Amino acid sequence: MSEMMQAAVLHGVHDLRVEEVPAPGRPAPNEARIQINKVGICGSDVHYWEHGRIGDFIVESPMVLGHECAGTVVEVGSNVTDLRPGDRVAIEPGVPRLSTPLSHYYMKRGEYNLCPDIFFFATPPDHGSFCDYVNHPADFCFKLPDNVSLEEGAMIEPLSTGIYACRVAPIVLGDTVVITGAGPIGLMNMLAAKAAGAANVLISDVVPARLEVAQQIGATRVITGNPEELKEAARELTNGRGADVCIEAAGHPSAINACIAAARPGGTVVLIGMVPNDTAEISITDIIVREIKLRPIFRYNNTFPTGVDLMASGKVDVKPLISRRFSLPEVPQAFEYVIANRDTCVKAIVDVK
Amino acid sequence: MSEMMQAAVLHGVHDLRVEEVPAPGRPAPNEARIQINKVGICGSDVHYWEHGRIGDFIVESPMVLGHECAGTVVEVGSNVTDLRPGDRVAIEPGVPRLSTPLSHYYMKRGEYNLCPDIFFFATPPDHGSFCDYVNHPADFCFKLPDNVSLEEGAMIEPLSTGIYACRVAPIVLGDTVVITGAGPIGLMNMLAAKAAGAANVLISDVVPARLEVAQQIGATRVITGNPEELKEAARELTNGRGADVCIEAAGHPSAINACIAAARPGGTVVLIGMVPNDTAEISITDIIVREIKLRPIFRYNNTFPTGVDLMASGKVDVKPLISRRFSLPEVPQAFEYVIANRDTCVKAIVDVK
Amino acid sequence: MSEMMQAAVLHGVHDLRVEEVPAPGRPAPNEARIQINKVGICGSDVHYWEHGRIGDFIVESPMVLGHECAGTVVEVGSNVTDLRPGDRVAIEPGVPRLSTPLSHYYMKRGEYNLCPDIFFFATPPDHGSFCDYVNHPADFCFKLPDNVSLEEGAMIEPLSTGIYACRVAPIVLGDTVVITGAGPIGLMNMLAAKAAGAANVLISDVVPARLEVAQQIGATRVITGNPEELKEAARELTNGRGADVCIEAAGHPSAINACIAAARPGGTVVLIGMVPNDTAEISITDIIVREIKLRPIFRYNNTFPTGVDLMASGKVDVKPLISRRFSLPEVPQAFEYVIANRDTCVKAIVDVK
Amino acid sequence: MSEMMQAAVLHGVHDLRVEEVPAPGRPAPNEARIQINKVGICGSDVHYWEHGRIGDFIVESPMVLGHECAGTVVEVGSNVTDLRPGDRVAIEPGVPRLSTPLSHYYMKRGEYNLCPDIFFFATPPDHGSFCDYVNHPADFCFKLPDNVSLEEGAMIEPLSTGIYACRVAPIVLGDTVVITGAGPIGLMNMLAAKAAGAANVLISDVVPARLEVAQQIGATRVITGNPEELKEAARELTNGRGADVCIEAAGHPSAINACIAAARPGGTVVLIGMVPNDTAEISITDIIVREIKLRPIFRYNNTFPTGVDLMASGKVDVKPLISRRFSLPEVPQAFEYVIANRDTCVKAIVDVK
Repeated sequence: MSEMMQAAVLHGVHDLRVEEVPAPGRPAPNEARIQINKVGICGSDVHYWEHGRIGDFIVESPMVLGHECAGTVVEVGSNVTDLRPGDRVAIEPGVPRLSTPLSHYYMKRGEYNLCPDIFFFATPPDHGSFCDYVNHPADFCFKLPDNVSLEEGAMIEPLSTGIYACRVAPIVLGDTVVITGAGPIGLMNMLAAKAAGAANVLISDVVPARLEVAQQIGATRVITGNPEELKEAARELTNGRGADVCIEAAGHPSAINACIAAARPGGTVVLIGMVPNDTAEISITDIIVREIKLRPIFRYNNTFPTGVDLMASGKVDVKPLISRRFSLPEVPQAFEYVIANRDTCVKAIVDVK
Repeated sequence: MSEMMQAAVLHGVHDLRVEEVPAPGRPAPNEARIQINKVGICGSDVHYWEHGRIGDFIVESPMVLGHECAGTVVEVGSNVTDLRPGDRVAIEPGVPRLSTPLSHYYMKRGEYNLCPDIFFFATPPDHGSFCDYVNHPADFCFKLPDNVSLEEGAMIEPLSTGIYACRVAPIVLGDTVVITGAGPIGLMNMLAAKAAGAANVLISDVVPARLEVAQQIGATRVITGNPEELKEAARELTNGRGADVCIEAAGHPSAINACIAAARPGGTVVLIGMVPNDTAEISITDIIVREIKLRPIFRYNNTFPTGVDLMASGKVDVKPLISRRFSLPEVPQAFEYVIANRDTCVKAIVDVK
Repeated sequence: MSEMMQAAVLHGVHDLRVEEVPAPGRPAPNEARIQINKVGICGSDVHYWEHGRIGDFIVESPMVLGHECAGTVVEVGSNVTDLRPGDRVAIEPGVPRLSTPLSHYYMKRGEYNLCPDIFFFATPPDHGSFCDYVNHPADFCFKLPDNVSLEEGAMIEPLSTGIYACRVAPIVLGDTVVITGAGPIGLMNMLAAKAAGAANVLISDVVPARLEVAQQIGATRVITGNPEELKEAARELTNGRGADVCIEAAGHPSAINACIAAARPGGTVVLIGMVPNDTAEISITDIIVREIKLRPIFRYNNTFPTGVDLMASGKVDVKPLISRRFSLPEVPQAFEYVIANRDTCVKAIVDVK
Repeated sequence: MSEMMQAAVLHGVHDLRVEEVPAPGRPAPNEARIQINKVGICGSDVHYWEHGRIGDFIVESPMVLGHECAGTVVEVGSNVTDLRPGDRVAIEPGVPRLSTPLSHYYMKRGEYNLCPDIFFFATPPDHGSFCDYVNHPADFCFKLPDNVSLEEGAMIEPLSTGIYACRVAPIVLGDTVVITGAGPIGLMNMLAAKAAGAANVLISDVVPARLEVAQQIGATRVITGNPEELKEAARELTNGRGADVCIEAAGHPSAINACIAAARPGGTVVLIGMVPNDTAEISITDIIVREIKLRPIFRYNNTFPTGVDLMASGKVDVKPLISRRFSLPEVPQAFEYVIANRDTCVKAIVDVK
C-alpha cells in the first residue's frame, strides 16, 4: 500500500486541483527519490491549464503539472554512488527512455532532446513535479553547491533555453543580439546572451512593463514592439550591419519576420516560440539574398552543469526575475495570479517545502 | 579609339542581340585581359531574357548576359605576377568592390559573397561574359591544369553552388541527402554531395526526363515529385530517421516543405532556389519540435580552387551534363533551344572561340 | 553449470592459447547474445601478445583477445525490441559503463569514447571476442543489410578510426590529405578520406610493399618515407600551400614532424599513432607561426551507423584489404603469420564460424 | 623634399634612439594619414630591443618599433569614403600585401593573419608606430566612438589576442579556463575569457606581483606556478573533469605541459607563447588518450570591430592594466623601466601627442 502525497493535478481546462495522489515507491537502482522544494510556474503549465494542449501534446487524463524544479535527495537506488540523502539538486525534467534505435541514435550523439521517446515532466502523458516527491534518474539530478539556493536551482530549467540558444546560435564575444519577447524566456535568454559575450542586447515586447524589467537587468536598449525601430536600432549599434543573432521568444509570425529584418547578412535567427497557428509566412527571397539562417531549438541538452556553474560563479543572477511565491495548496490561485498579471509577473515560484 | 568585339546583349524581354560593343581596354594593374572561350547558359540568363528581372535585380539598360565562363589570358596588368598570356583560366564572376566598411567587413571574414557592393557578371547593372574579351581581377581567375578542359572550367561556376552547399550544410561522410529539383543546379549539387561523402542521394523532380540524367550520374534513388514518397524513401534508407541534409533547388514553396518533411530531427535544409512570389508558408511548430535548420545560401565563396582540384583529380566529372554546344552568334537561338527543351537540356555551352 | 566455449586467451607475452572457457549465460535485459562469426586481427592484439601491455593498459590476468568483430544474434534480453535471432550484426567494442558523473558527462555530450570507465573488448581487464559467444548491449550492435558480408561487418571497427578522423579533422570536399603510415589504420583512413571528399591523398611509409596496396586502392601518390619529398609533393598538388589535413598513423615522432612540415598554414594534423616512448619533440615556433592544429583522437564515437551505410551503399570497399583467413584454433599461428608478414599482410580475419 | 618627424628607431641590440626620420608623404588612394596619439609597449618590442630578433624575424637595418596604437586621421586618400580628418581610430597593425596567390587564398578565406606576405608594424623589415605619423590602409583603421579613449583604442591590439583565442578555442558559456602566464597577454586573455562566458578563470604565474593584478581584475583563483596545484584547482571547480580550455601565454615548455595536465579529456590548449628554444617535449600518449587538442594561434584576424564594441559597451575594461605613461622622447627610458619592473608593470603607454 503506497504512501500518499499532495500534488497539483490538471483534470481539464481550467480544472487544476491540489489533491492526494500516490507517492512514488522506492527508487529504482539508478534513481534518486527527491523531496521537491521549489517549482517555478512556466508558461507551458499555464497554457495546458488554459487550453488542455500544446500542439500535438494533448492532456487526455489527469496530469500533475510543473517541471522547473529543485529538491532534496531523500533516498538513492542501489547503483547510485554520487548522490546521498541531504544533497540539494536541480532536476533536469527531460530523460530519454532509450526504447528504440532512433532514441539511442540521438542519445549517443549528445542530442538527447531529440529522442522521440523522451520523458518530460508535465508533458502528456508524463506527470510533473508540483508535488512532494519524485523518483528521478540520478544522472539527471545536479548537485547544488552551498552558495546556490534551491530557488535558483529551480530556475536552471528556464535558464537552460538561454544557455542552449547561446551555444547553438552561437553567440560569440562582442555580438549584438536582438530578442523578441520579454517574458520569462526572453529575459532568461537575455541573461544568458550577456553572460555569453554579447556586447549589446536589444529586446522588444509590446508590453512596456516587461521592458522595464529588461532594462533593470541590463538591456542595452528596449523597443516597444516596433519592427522598424528594432531593425534601425540594431543597425545603429553595428555600423549598419544588423544583429549578429536574433532570438525569437515571442511566439508570433510577425516577431519572426521582425527578427529576420533585424539580422545582419549572414546572421542567425534562433526560433524558440511556438506560433499560434503553427505556420508563418517567411520571405524566402530575403533570407536567401542575405543568407539569414533559421535555427529552431526544442528544449535543450547538456545545459544543467553549465547552469549550476553560472550560478555558483555569480556569472548569472536570476534572482531579480522572481516576482512572487506561493505554497503548494495555493497553486490554483497562483495560476490565476499569473494569468491576471501576465505583464508584470516574470517568474512565480511554488515553495513546496 | 577602342577596339570592338561581339557580345550577346539583352535589350529587353525576349530581345537578345549579338552585336558589336566596345572591347575592354588595357587591363588595370591587378587585372588580366581574357579571351573568353566557353560560357555556359544559366537559368538566370534565361530568366532575365524572359522576365527582364530576378527579384530586385532589374535590367534597366542593355546588358551583356553570361557568367559561367573560362578563357585564355591575353595580357596582364603591371601588378599581376602569377598569370601570363596563354594561361587557361576559370573565371569567378563575383568580385566585391570593397567600397564601404560593410563590404570590407564581409571580405575580411571570408564571406565576400555577402558584400553588398559585389560586382557580378550579368547581374544588373554589371555586364556578363557572352563576349570576346573581359578584363577581370587576376585573383578571381583560376589557372586550369592541362587535364581540365575549358568547357569543364566554365562549369566550375555552376558546380560552385554545390561545393558551397556541401560545405555549409555540412554534408559529412555517410550522410543521406535529399535534393529537390533535378535541373542543372540540382544535378551539380548531386555531384558535389556524392563527392563530399554522401552515402545516398535521393533526388526528386516533376519531369521524368531529368530524373533519367540523375539516375545515369549516380542517384541512389529518383522520385517523381511526390513529397510523401520522398519522405518515405529517405526514412527507408536511414532506419527511419530521415535525410541528414536536404537541398532545395526547385524553387517552389512545396519543395521547401517536402524537404522539411524528409529531413531527420536535427537535420538541415539548404535553400538555394528563389520562389515565385518571394515567400513560403513554413510550419514553425514542425521545425521547432524536430529542430530542422534552414540554411539559405546566396551564390558561394572560396569554391573555385576546390572546383579546379575536384576536376583535376577526377573526383567530379561534369562532362555528362553538357547537352549541346552553340557559337556566339547563335546565342539567341541557343536561348530559344534551352527554353524549348527545358526538360532534356541540362547544360548548353557557348563556344565563343 | 555454465556451458563452455572456445576462446583465444592471452596468458602472457607470446603465450596465446586457444582453450575452453565458460560461455556467457543468458543475456541481460538490454543485451543480445551473439554467435561470433568473423574477427579481424588488429595491431593492438599483436602488441599485447608481444609486449603484454600498451601504455598504461597492462595484461595482468588471462584475457581473451580480439575486438574487430561481427556475428549473428542468437538470443535477446527482455528489453531488446529491435534485434532478433538470426540478425547479422557488427559489434561496437567500446561501451561506457556509466558508473560515475564524469562518465555520464561525456556520454550525454556524445563523446562516449572519453568516458573513463568505458568497457572495451580486449583492453585489460576486459575480455575480447576471439571466442564463440559474447553478450553485448543491443544498442552497440548494428544490423548488417543483406548486401554487407560478415567480413565487411568485422571491418567497420578499423574503418571507424578513419570515419572519426575525417569527421573531427574535418576533411572537406577537395582537400589534399597526407597520411603517414600505410598499415591497416593508414589504409582505412585513406579509404575514409577519399570517400569524405579528399581530392588528393598522399601516403608515406618506409615499407614499399605497403605502398603498393595503397597505390592499388587509389592513392594519388605514394612516398617512400622521405619527409622532404612528402612536403614537396603536398605543395605541388596545392599551388604551394601544403596539405589541408595530415593523418599520423605511423606512431613515430619523426612521422608527426613530417606531418607538421607537410601541412599548410592553418592545416590540421590528426594524431592516431601512439609513439614508442610516449613523447615527441614538437616545434612550437613552427606550429604557432603557421597555426598548425594538433588533433589527437582516441578510438571513435558514433561511427558504426556511418560504417554500415558506407558499405551498404558501396561508397567504401574494404574487401581488397583482406590478406588472409584463419580459423579460431589457428589464432596463435595467425599471430605468428601476421608478425612474420607485417609488410604484406594488411588484414587477417579469423573465421570463427 | 619630405617633412621630418620623430620616431623611436631600433639600431641594434640595446640601441634605441628617438630621432628625426622622414614622415610619410600623402596617403595613397586607399590610405589614411594618421597622427599617432597613443602606443603601448609590447613584450615583442622589448624583445627586439634585447635580442635583435624573434625567431626568424631578424632586425637587419634600423627599424621603428611599436605596434599597439591609436591616433587621429589627418588626411584621407581619394578612395576613402568612410573616414575623415578628426576621426579617432584604432589601428590594426597587420595588413596582407596580397602579392601572391597564397596570400589571396588566405585573405579570401578570412584568415588573413596567415598571409605569408603580411605587413606588420615593427616586424622586420616593416617599420612600426612609435612616431608622429603613419599612412595606413583605411580599412584597417577602426573609428572609436566618443566613449572610448585613445588609450583604450591602443589596447585593442593586445586585447585582440584574447578575442581571437576565445573565438577559436572556442570558449563557451560556463567554461572553466586556465591561463598560464599573468603578463599583459595572459591578463588580456583573462579579460576576454571572462567576457566570453567563462564561469571560472584560473591563472598561474611564478611572479606573485602579477597574480595580484589578476586577482584584482577578477581571477577566480590564482596559482603561484605549481602545475600540480593548477591541475587540482581546475578539477575542484569542475567536478573532477579539468579545464575546458587552457591558454598558454607564458612561453615555456613546462607551461605547455601544465596546460595539458590541467585540461579535461576533450579539452583544448591554446598556444600563444613562443618558447625559448623553439621546441617542447609533448606527451603524445597523454594527449591521445585524453584527446587534448593543441590549437596554436598566430596574432589574430577580424578582432578590431569586436574590440571596439567590447569597449564601447563597457563589456571589457582594460584601463586597470595601464601601469605607467611616457612621452615619445622618453621611449628608451620607458624600455629600461619596463625591463626593470617586469613583475609589476603591466602595460606602459607612450603618449605621442
